[in-house]
Amino acid sequence: MVNKEWQLQDYLKEKVQIVDSALDRYLPEGTTLPAFLHESMRYSVFAGGKRIRPVLMLAACEAVGGEIENILPAACAIEMIHTYSLIHDDLPAMDDDDLRRGNPTNHKVYGEATAILAGDGLLTEAFILLSNSSHFGDVSPEASLEVIHLLAKSSGSRGMVGGQVVDMDAEGKEIDLPTLEYIHTHKTGALILAAIEVGALLGGASDKQRQALCQYGEAAGLAFQVADDILDIVAEQSQLGKDIGRDQERGKATYPALLGLSGARQRASELRNMALSSLNIFDDSARPLREIAGFIIDRSC
Amino acid sequence: MVNKEWQLQDYLKEKVQIVDSALDRYLPEGTTLPAFLHESMRYSVFAGGKRIRPVLMLAACEAVGGEIENILPAACAIEMIHTYSLIHDDLPAMDDDDLRRGNPTNHKVYGEATAILAGDGLLTEAFILLSNSSHFGDVSPEASLEVIHLLAKSSGSRGMVGGQVVDMDAEGKEIDLPTLEYIHTHKTGALILAAIEVGALLGGASDKQRQALCQYGEAAGLAFQVADDILDIVAEQSQLGKDIGRDQERGKATYPALLGLSGARQRASELRNMALSSLNIFDDSARPLREIAGFIIDRSC
Repeated sequence: MVNKEWQLQDYLKEKVQIVDSALDRYLPEGTTLPAFLHESMRYSVFAGGKRIRPVLMLAACEAVGGEIENILPAACAIEMIHTYSLIHDDLPAMDDDDLRRGNPTNHKVYGEATAILAGDGLLTEAFILLSNSSHFGDVSPEASLEVIHLLAKSSGSRGMVGGQVVDMDAEGKEIDLPTLEYIHTHKTGALILAAIEVGALLGGASDKQRQALCQYGEAAGLAFQVADDILDIVAEQSQLGKDIGRDQERGKATYPALLGLSGARQRASELRNMALSSLNIFDDSARPLREIAGFIIDRSC
Repeated sequence: MVNKEWQLQDYLKEKVQIVDSALDRYLPEGTTLPAFLHESMRYSVFAGGKRIRPVLMLAACEAVGGEIENILPAACAIEMIHTYSLIHDDLPAMDDDDLRRGNPTNHKVYGEATAILAGDGLLTEAFILLSNSSHFGDVSPEASLEVIHLLAKSSGSRGMVGGQVVDMDAEGKEIDLPTLEYIHTHKTGALILAAIEVGALLGGASDKQRQALCQYGEAAGLAFQVADDILDIVAEQSQLGKDIGRDQERGKATYPALLGLSGARQRASELRNMALSSLNIFDDSARPLREIAGFIIDRSC
């Protein structure tokens, strides 16, 4: 067990380094005018994110034998989209959070106006990067357009942004399990699924492989959220680096609140098993994806 | 003169109808879940915008003999990007405006959180539309990617968003003419230039035609802003439908403040002449572009 976790940690560390170094190359430098804005964009991108979406994208690409060089722009673009969504979610008009990953949130450092614009800038930067033909490598224009479409759709008003609207609306209300799953499959699940699907597409997956990986992505995305809800209740603040119990305090519906703690753990475990069984058609190339699914659940149990 | 204006008004009316009807088709319906979000997105898109950017795009396309059918998705995408920027600019943390085109601003109707997300949704929707291959018509994937790149770059942190940051930062400060022109060439000029360049590109312009149209776009974009500054001082509230003199009240630098009213009018007139002379290589197909340049200035003089 110790050996297995050690290997996964090595894998994650290596991939995070690759992604971080590519993000540093692709983002405008902090001195690019207007410097205050670009500093603010970089502040949130390099505020200690775990790079889950880019790493899943790289792992899906490798599972089908693809070259990760070709997908680094897409991997960085999805992290920019994820970071923009965190900056906007943390705003006073939204979740009003002062801390994120143990650091002051963007608007606490740069002010609300700049935070809104840094989010806008990062979202737009993702599409600048995805449409920059000098980064395409072996990727065809058709595939680049499909990547843009997948990432835009999963992060827009019928994806991530839609999930956030329903989440805000549900605050302080009693909601049922289908509504909670709607929120999570949209707010976080859609972009995780897109990470996997883009990795599969750019890795050269067959239809069957792509379908299997999408099933994995759906289950893993939801499992991740169930685990996050559990963590919000059981983890120590120092461990997670954000305000603990805020979901409860804010009257947000969570899996433990709807299913009880053991019910939520059971749901997480079911989702992990679904994620794992969808990988049955793959050999050892899918090992990172298998271990990531286990890791998601283990950290909450 | 009456006859000339009448013809331009007919041209604008016809194009606005084409754009409005395409926007209605391309935007998610107001009943699409989450309905509150999609209503809010539609509210601002259909709040009486003059569609200047899409109309300039269509006119540039027609100037080089292109088919406007092929550019309707791009024309609608640029209007979505423009509308998102207005929603975010109006927010309490930014310009804090209650009225826009005579109507309550998005956050006054839907609340601040939804307004932020409606802006995010519209920006993302633009890229969903631009990457949707079922709308491409005769446009190649390479050209579609170039359009995405032009629109993203002009609206991002080194374009429109960057201009807004410098504009916010300049509030209440004494700034010089180069800074004021930086603000306007980025905040409004970049997207107007992109409208023209995309119209030229998708219309099949030669390099020489594209270059001439870009010169037109740069001059017309800046002329538009100078005229807007003049209007802010001289127009009646009822005529413009927004709070008049707000720029002055807020301590924003304007062309009339830096150059005096007659100096600003002279600058607007110079820019119009630059715009017109860049169209010298075109025959009557560029008449709408010529008349639009005149119209921009006439409304402020």
